Amino acid sequence: MKKRVAIIGATGIAGQQFLAALPEHPDFEVAALAASSRSAGKNYLDALREPSGAIGWWCDEELNETYAQMPVVDAEDFDAASVDIVFSAVESDAAKTLEPRYAQTTPVVSTASAFRYEDDVPILIPGVNNAHAALLQKQQTARGWRGFVTPIPNCTTTGLAMTLKPLHDRFGVRGVVMTSMQAMSGAGRRGGVLGLDAVENVIPFIPGEEEKVQRETQKILGALGDSGIEAAQFPVSATCTRVGVLDGHTEAVFVATKEACSVEDAAQAMREFDGGLSGLPSAPDPLIFLHEDPFRPQPRRDRDRNNGMTTVVGRLREEGALGAHGVKYVLVSHNTKMGAARGALLVAELLMRDGFIR
Amino acid sequence: MKKRVAIIGATGIAGQQFLAALPEHPDFEVAALAASSRSAGKNYLDALREPSGAIGWWCDEELNETYAQMPVVDAEDFDAASVDIVFSAVESDAAKTLEPRYAQTTPVVSTASAFRYEDDVPILIPGVNNAHAALLQKQQTARGWRGFVTPIPNCTTTGLAMTLKPLHDRFGVRGVVMTSMQAMSGAGRRGGVLGLDAVENVIPFIPGEEEKVQRETQKILGALGDSGIEAAQFPVSATCTRVGVLDGHTEAVFVATKEACSVEDAAQAMREFDGGLSGLPSAPDPLIFLHEDPFRPQPRRDRDRNNGMTTVVGRLREEGALGAHGVKYVLVSHNTKMGAARGALLVAELLMRDGFIR
Amino acid sequence: MKKRVAIIGATGIAGQQFLAALPEHPDFEVAALAASSRSAGKNYLDALREPSGAIGWWCDEELNETYAQMPVVDAEDFDAASVDIVFSAVESDAAKTLEPRYAQTTPVVSTASAFRYEDDVPILIPGVNNAHAALLQKQQTARGWRGFVTPIPNCTTTGLAMTLKPLHDRFGVRGVVMTSMQAMSGAGRRGGVLGLDAVENVIPFIPGEEEKVQRETQKILGALGDSGIEAAQFPVSATCTRVGVLDGHTEAVFVATKEACSVEDAAQAMREFDGGLSGLPSAPDPLIFLHEDPFRPQPRRDRDRNNGMTTVVGRLREEGALGAHGVKYVLVSHNTKMGAARGALLVAELLMRDGFIR
Amino acid sequence: MKKRVAIIGATGIAGQQFLAALPEHPDFEVAALAASSRSAGKNYLDALREPSGAIGWWCDEELNETYAQMPVVDAEDFDAASVDIVFSAVESDAAKTLEPRYAQTTPVVSTASAFRYEDDVPILIPGVNNAHAALLQKQQTARGWRGFVTPIPNCTTTGLAMTLKPLHDRFGVRGVVMTSMQAMSGAGRRGGVLGLDAVENVIPFIPGEEEKVQRETQKILGALGDSGIEAAQFPVSATCTRVGVLDGHTEAVFVATKEACSVEDAAQAMREFDGGLSGLPSAPDPLIFLHEDPFRPQPRRDRDRNNGMTTVVGRLREEGALGAHGVKYVLVSHNTKMGAARGALLVAELLMRDGFIR
Repeated sequence: MKKRVAIIGATGIAGQQFLAALPEHPDFEVAALAASSRSAGKNYLDALREPSGAIGWWCDEELNETYAQMPVVDAEDFDAASVDIVFSAVESDAAKTLEPRYAQTTPVVSTASAFRYEDDVPILIPGVNNAHAALLQKQQTARGWRGFVTPIPNCTTTGLAMTLKPLHDRFGVRGVVMTSMQAMSGAGRRGGVLGLDAVENVIPFIPGEEEKVQRETQKILGALGDSGIEAAQFPVSATCTRVGVLDGHTEAVFVATKEACSVEDAAQAMREFDGGLSGLPSAPDPLIFLHEDPFRPQPRRDRDRNNGMTTVVGRLREEGALGAHGVKYVLVSHNTKMGAARGALLVAELLMRDGFIR
Repeated sequence: MKKRVAIIGATGIAGQQFLAALPEHPDFEVAALAASSRSAGKNYLDALREPSGAIGWWCDEELNETYAQMPVVDAEDFDAASVDIVFSAVESDAAKTLEPRYAQTTPVVSTASAFRYEDDVPILIPGVNNAHAALLQKQQTARGWRGFVTPIPNCTTTGLAMTLKPLHDRFGVRGVVMTSMQAMSGAGRRGGVLGLDAVENVIPFIPGEEEKVQRETQKILGALGDSGIEAAQFPVSATCTRVGVLDGHTEAVFVATKEACSVEDAAQAMREFDGGLSGLPSAPDPLIFLHEDPFRPQPRRDRDRNNGMTTVVGRLREEGALGAHGVKYVLVSHNTKMGAARGALLVAELLMRDGFIR
Repeated sequence: MKKRVAIIGATGIAGQQFLAALPEHPDFEVAALAASSRSAGKNYLDALREPSGAIGWWCDEELNETYAQMPVVDAEDFDAASVDIVFSAVESDAAKTLEPRYAQTTPVVSTASAFRYEDDVPILIPGVNNAHAALLQKQQTARGWRGFVTPIPNCTTTGLAMTLKPLHDRFGVRGVVMTSMQAMSGAGRRGGVLGLDAVENVIPFIPGEEEKVQRETQKILGALGDSGIEAAQFPVSATCTRVGVLDGHTEAVFVATKEACSVEDAAQAMREFDGGLSGLPSAPDPLIFLHEDPFRPQPRRDRDRNNGMTTVVGRLREEGALGAHGVKYVLVSHNTKMGAARGALLVAELLMRDGFIR
Repeated sequence: MKKRVAIIGATGIAGQQFLAALPEHPDFEVAALAASSRSAGKNYLDALREPSGAIGWWCDEELNETYAQMPVVDAEDFDAASVDIVFSAVESDAAKTLEPRYAQTTPVVSTASAFRYEDDVPILIPGVNNAHAALLQKQQTARGWRGFVTPIPNCTTTGLAMTLKPLHDRFGVRGVVMTSMQAMSGAGRRGGVLGLDAVENVIPFIPGEEEKVQRETQKILGALGDSGIEAAQFPVSATCTRVGVLDGHTEAVFVATKEACSVEDAAQAMREFDGGLSGLPSAPDPLIFLHEDPFRPQPRRDRDRNNGMTTVVGRLREEGALGAHGVKYVLVSHNTKMGAARGALLVAELLMRDGFIR
């Protein structure tokens, strides 16, 4: 029996990415599509039609024909009890009011940031902090919900936390400096990056992004104790920039470690990294791929490895400017796949396997 | 009386940039153009003609008509004694044999890396290490030359050293982490970056670049003593990447300082930075411009400030991951103007003022 | 005595281009800036500040400091009688109500399309149809205005009509086929082209553009008679596309002529083309520049010739598919300079010289 | 039994595209890889290694591991009799001497232009001119070969001829005007388009391209009679430009027809177009897809439809400037898939089915 899932914010670019990933999913079937009142009452394809005549479907994958004909309901009126899982891809403001409502009856896996920093809310990256899922039970108890809200992190955090995890486990991270070169798809389409700004240029500021990366990385790599998650104590310093790339965030990472950590040690730690996801349909193998070509990873050429679920690392070198020991490297992580919709599916798969979603 | 100058490697992209900058120069007149034997014997415009019919003049500025009609001589045969200053824009291999030959009679200001790491050779950035010019006298004595060879740094070093200088003077730099997003023009045209690699992509590796930046920054910010330049002792760790930008290197810089250094302190140090270049024709005012717009500097919009001679800084923030004190920021520096031909002109102007070129 | 001019829609990208061009204009001084009620009451620099902290000044030229401090008035309340000339850079809807109001007292030169197709309104391209200005007197009489409204054409029409003019005069145009590759700046910033659409792509449709080009070209190259302008009778067929270029429209033009027209004839006609603008401050010399390099014109390299006022033509070849005689060529025309603000200034200069503005 | 095939020029970008397409091919197995003497003697992966350490595999598809370990033989020494089919992806100069040698024993399907214009050589586009294959028998007789050489057309011709075919069959084509916006991959990597030229630009000239398109289109749409192919008599006039797109040629086509041809008629002709390829493994269904979204086709979004084998058409409109009847439209055709390696595979599949390859 497949789980019946709903996509909230289905017409937006994040919602579309769920619909691009779901047609062949072995465990989930799309039971409902919800969006704002503007789209409600239309079928999905009609809801995508723009006044100009354009059809606003923006994924590389073709729109599934069954979904195209499904009715879109108003997210305000949607009865979450009618489905087994809610995938929420709405803006943060809408998430604040909608997600708690749905969570009264139903697990909500969300790409929105609205609840990420609440004490009883984990930010799950499958493979990195699976154990944090236990916090969801506290959340249910504390809030009196039968469901819960579990957000995934900001898409820039995902690759960083993923690659720090094996280093932190073996050598202890002492400090991190990171500069990102982020793709335009991270900004979406409404209010998205203009061609006039992106072409032949770098935009050195993404409002709010650096704070998210710093805070979320520390929380994700923190330890779950009786009193909740104790954030990791090492500093994370980030400069987040936007470049004229469509998909795939590139990050130049400099890590100081507590223990001595040669390049070979670090490579081995990353290669052997096993997030305990074996058998989950969306889990990539490996989670981290170490590229031997010194000119890789490149976002355009490496973002799609294993359906965009593998983080690709290259240029692993010794690092000495931050502390006595450490390494530096470059990573590419697909911001709209592992970093968004497909990553959220993987969270749901993990929670099913571990009994948090039944 | 204007100084008579020769451009060696005049047909290459670096040589062209000299010719783009010189027509209105108050102190220099172009007396000779030299290039490889392939071009020798033609006039300059004909030497630029390609087999396809294209005219290989690549600067935004129109080619000066007088230069267009000048004969090109073979760099191997060029008599440097016939001019007052040689500007060398040849590849490093050619520089190794040509520049010492010219230096027997004539000062050579070079964009090539061939001599940068010799003990009796300064790497001058006007405004940053003017005093290092004194080393040229040692060089003349030691080598028995009437002229000398003085290279400018790698174009990625220029903006970094320029912005570190006021911080180092006031607060003492303890360590530097830098990620560059470099323009394609840095790679030139022969063997240059392909559109197939640059478009919608980031290339995370530029062979040899990081080592140059680290070594040159330490030498430039070092102290000249009796036994030569003692390199600065702080570590510099760099990841150099290429992005699809035409001109202008962007660098995300993280600096740890010895003394406490608030954002306001650092801003003041940069704003007040005076390199002692007042009156030199190519010297920009200011050397460092601090942008108040949080979305700046951007390479396309900020590279040309003051003819591409000013380093533009923005996003100045506190930095704590590398040490107790510090700041981080983003800079844009024009790699083919301040970082190449126009920067070399400025070196020559400084050396004239200070009596090293007469 | 300089003419006092007002810029309406001063905060938009088209309005800004007027302000980028005016600081050094010998005959015009900026007396008033008007915009929507949102900006009214602020000084100009404050009106450009965006909620994000960005300063929304988008021209390459620095913002003039005097203009930065000028108050912005509400376009609805602006008293056009207080100035000698109104330059209108508002959207077409706003133009419909605002421009007739201003025209009661004052000449209005407009970049908006609102009045282009009215029978008593010429679409002036200086150098191409100077004589059409006489229609403005009919307009004044018919409408009882002391001023008038005179729009410039769509930016894609400008280069096409400019290059057809010398061919039409000498050989008679029988038919035109044109494919444009247009710059993103033509779409402006509000609702502008997204990076996600423009990067590594071609967008083959610009709503309304082809109709404008066809209709305006025929009107501009038509003859002014007693009963108004009789549009030229030759068919114009256009496909207008958008490419990831910042500024400068490229057009591949195929022309059938009535008379025999060799490539050399056509080249001569273009080279000798004299629009009768000699002495006007913004008039380029020449109006049409014929490039000998077969790889030119290129928008990035040719758009700025003579401050973006010259149309650059290349690849002039024989054309036989449309009719017995003809030529084909590629042109580049700067869409926001000759095709917008600076072109409007040139219209005003022409109308002053010819006595329509006193 | 699969046919044993050899790829000549296997290390080049065109050769790689064959290897990207072949791993899952039901009828072909790769029996030999040949390249220049520089690569001969290495295994394929080693032959791809560049001095910089980069691995020069440029396709989106991962390199097949079996091919990676295959030896590369010298194309000069390759014994074509050892395979059933030769796919040649060498430069035109090399093709001139190599292909006739191979053809003595073995059918050669080539992407090179060397033999396209010989009287006894068809230029096959499956679905468009299947019947021209009969000319191969004449070629064999005349040249005394057991095999033959059959080139595919220039990649810009493919989409044009494909879309003209149903119009020519039903309405008779009288004349064609076409402007292309071509992808950079068409120029390959050696001597390929530089980022410095392609970014934020249009290059309006591709040497030799327009002549190829004109000549090949006429030959392909010509009739095979007793004395060979009589080229179609309608004029084809083309302007070929290069834009900063990675893959996928966009063409704006204007067609005059002999018979009346409404937009609906033309759409129906294209939709109903059946090239007689049913059952061939690489044949797309449909050959031509008509897009209803007015903003399509776009090269980035439409090039990969049906593995890059379908030509996507949009913006079908009435055309009147070239003649009394006609239509205009925009097409996107994948230049390195249908227009190169995969198109050549489809030719071989067709020739097998029709008995020319046994």
